[in-house]
Amino acid sequence: TVNGQALWHDLTTTAAFGGTAKGGICRLALSDEDFQVRAWFEQTCKALGCTVTCDSMGNQFARRAGLQNDLPPIMMGSHLDTQVTGGRFDGILGVLGGIAVLRALHDADIHTRHPVEVVNWTNEEGARFRPPMLASGVFGGVFTEEFAGSRADATGVTLQQELERGGFVGKERCGQHPAAAYFELHIEQGPVLEAEECTIGVVTGVQGMRWYEVVVRGRSAHAGTTPMPMRKDALLAAARMIEQVNAVAQDYDPEGLSTVGIITAFPASSNVVPREVRFTVDLRHPSEDMLQGMEEDFLRRMQECAQAADVQVSVTPTWNSPAVHFDKRCVACVRESGKNLGYSMRDIVSGAGHDAVYISRVVPTAMIFVPCWQGISHNEAESATQEDVAAGSNVMLHAVLKADQE
Amino acid sequence: TVNGQALWHDLTTTAAFGGTAKGGICRLALSDEDFQVRAWFEQTCKALGCTVTCDSMGNQFARRAGLQNDLPPIMMGSHLDTQVTGGRFDGILGVLGGIAVLRALHDADIHTRHPVEVVNWTNEEGARFRPPMLASGVFGGVFTEEFAGSRADATGVTLQQELERGGFVGKERCGQHPAAAYFELHIEQGPVLEAEECTIGVVTGVQGMRWYEVVVRGRSAHAGTTPMPMRKDALLAAARMIEQVNAVAQDYDPEGLSTVGIITAFPASSNVVPREVRFTVDLRHPSEDMLQGMEEDFLRRMQECAQAADVQVSVTPTWNSPAVHFDKRCVACVRESGKNLGYSMRDIVSGAGHDAVYISRVVPTAMIFVPCWQGISHNEAESATQEDVAAGSNVMLHAVLKADQE
Ligand SMILES: NC(=O)NCCC(=O)O
Ligand SMILES: NC(=O)NCCC(=O)O
Repeated sequence: TVNGQALWHDLTTTAAFGGTAKGGICRLALSDEDFQVRAWFEQTCKALGCTVTCDSMGNQFARRAGLQNDLPPIMMGSHLDTQVTGGRFDGILGVLGGIAVLRALHDADIHTRHPVEVVNWTNEEGARFRPPMLASGVFGGVFTEEFAGSRADATGVTLQQELERGGFVGKERCGQHPAAAYFELHIEQGPVLEAEECTIGVVTGVQGMRWYEVVVRGRSAHAGTTPMPMRKDALLAAARMIEQVNAVAQDYDPEGLSTVGIITAFPASSNVVPREVRFTVDLRHPSEDMLQGMEEDFLRRMQECAQAADVQVSVTPTWNSPAVHFDKRCVACVRESGKNLGYSMRDIVSGAGHDAVYISRVVPTAMIFVPCWQGISHNEAESATQEDVAAGSNVMLHAVLKADQE
Repeated sequence: TVNGQALWHDLTTTAAFGGTAKGGICRLALSDEDFQVRAWFEQTCKALGCTVTCDSMGNQFARRAGLQNDLPPIMMGSHLDTQVTGGRFDGILGVLGGIAVLRALHDADIHTRHPVEVVNWTNEEGARFRPPMLASGVFGGVFTEEFAGSRADATGVTLQQELERGGFVGKERCGQHPAAAYFELHIEQGPVLEAEECTIGVVTGVQGMRWYEVVVRGRSAHAGTTPMPMRKDALLAAARMIEQVNAVAQDYDPEGLSTVGIITAFPASSNVVPREVRFTVDLRHPSEDMLQGMEEDFLRRMQECAQAADVQVSVTPTWNSPAVHFDKRCVACVRESGKNLGYSMRDIVSGAGHDAVYISRVVPTAMIFVPCWQGISHNEAESATQEDVAAGSNVMLHAVLKADQE
């Protein structure tokens, strides 16, 4: 079994890199804080006897040699970047839980057949460089390196520039790294496991998710002289659209989700009727068919709002991650390990995207969820217990050992 | 009469300082572009035999000596700063129309009793430093110098810092400058004069205007895992509030106006339900009583929206400029000049705030409006004809000469 105290200690140590006053973490991908935690990752894994390398997208691989080093490694991992007001577990647990597995193997002097690796994937959150899961997407063949490298943050700095600044452009081309299996441990980020008092979620797949950018164009006008009926107010139209985006999920199906996360209005002056508003839309559903229906409903509502308000609207799809079903044998490794260890469990579909989504396209993959407090995530108040995270890491240890036998 | 061609030439020349591709001007207060036009102002007025000074708020005064230089000057003026996507006439016409009057006096070698001055007031628009009419507000005793100097733009730079950077902190304390009368020429910025085919608007006063900042606080949450009924979405609540802000004017009274111009959402990530949204509100009405009623209606609607969406809301008043009635004798000078010159005219109440609003608190004041194309303003398409702006400047010339006799 893994050392739960050491895992908790690692979680506390790394929370200092970008730690916020409210107890959360602000550690955007390839920021100075991210560079700090990457240095910690390298040091810590080397102390456990691993070699640490990085690929052309800055993905870090810590490798513990096996008995047959010509076999492809069994990988674990997730990401160490966070949201702007992120929590202490999202992503981090998957990497540190992997290190806890390395430590358990190290301390018990266990020799696996395959090499065992822990990976830290670059820019999972999509908070700094959109879309999310960018470097695991390159690994999985979904995005080109050129596309990923050219993604710019809000200030115009690109991912490639930041990789170079941090010295994280490795020689190995992203995606060339072999792997026999991939396991990702994560907090659920939703309310189900806690409500049902389950310690372990056996993740069978991930719901579909689609992103859009909506641009609304009206006419700027003086706030003090333009009669209300003469206005083409892009922000008023956008406000009605945001209401309708939310209605898509609320009216359609209890499993659907729709969210507007970013909005900007131009020219942004108190006494000017806005002429242009941009906002992002995130639609999700576990069923691709239902998601397709939501998209059509959403597009229709946007046109209706624009017509009623006499403004122009354009909607551009910016990301589409179809629903995923994980590898049956890897899922079975997780389920059997949880059963053998005697934890309360249930199958679950992930609402959030994870690096596992894209890795699953090229490597047999499964995920393990543990409960988080009140299902709150992407929030500084995100929280999980020492017992639960140790349990999750334990299940991962035994899943890795099972996969090593296959 | 003024030289209409020279006035048009000046309007064209100065439009280059901050000129935009769409034919408008972006010349924010105390930006480099504003410094350029200020240098042009000084040069041009000196060439007409004026002395040019500036006070502690960076207001520039170009003075043409009179026969009795112990008499307080008759002032004309407006502002040379613009909105981010501003037009070529808003404010600029009042300063350049004043220079056209100086030129007419100079060319005809007319000697007035009083000195005659043209003023360029700092930061009228409120686009860079909020609130609007900031330096004329200090002149009129409405704001302290400390308050005005400490106002910061969106990047945190203060007005005082920018005054110092440009060398525009004059020795004369703002408000100490004497004046016998103040005339401000401006485009109407609304549709009335054009629709009624009037060349001159005799401005009898300015409507009341109030600004607020609204802060909505919800709870940030993961867009992919948080069921719709469990969300406290600050942006969805704000969207409903924006609809209600607009409804205040639409439901209340045809003369009322309500506008949301600026909105920001936090943490601004596509896959995070926003936890905090801030937006500005601008309410206007020619009657203070009606405006008070609008305010109460607005505040009630904000509370109702917040309650329905289970979020917190706070509303802070940030500016209150009560309805203004201009000086009867100055208004009569404008009306009689227009009549004598044979222009079609009507009385009008200004929908926009102007430096004249605050100057009128300490100096007898009136304003002259000329039509603008389709009533469009605070927009790069803002436009007016050479004939109309010359007519307005002519009326100002004769109003100044009339006031000089009183
Ligand atoms: N796990 C996680 O929060 N990933 C971000 C991608 C998403 O929006 O689901
Ligand atoms: N004239 C003008 O547009 N001034 C800005 C102040 C206002 O918002 O009315």
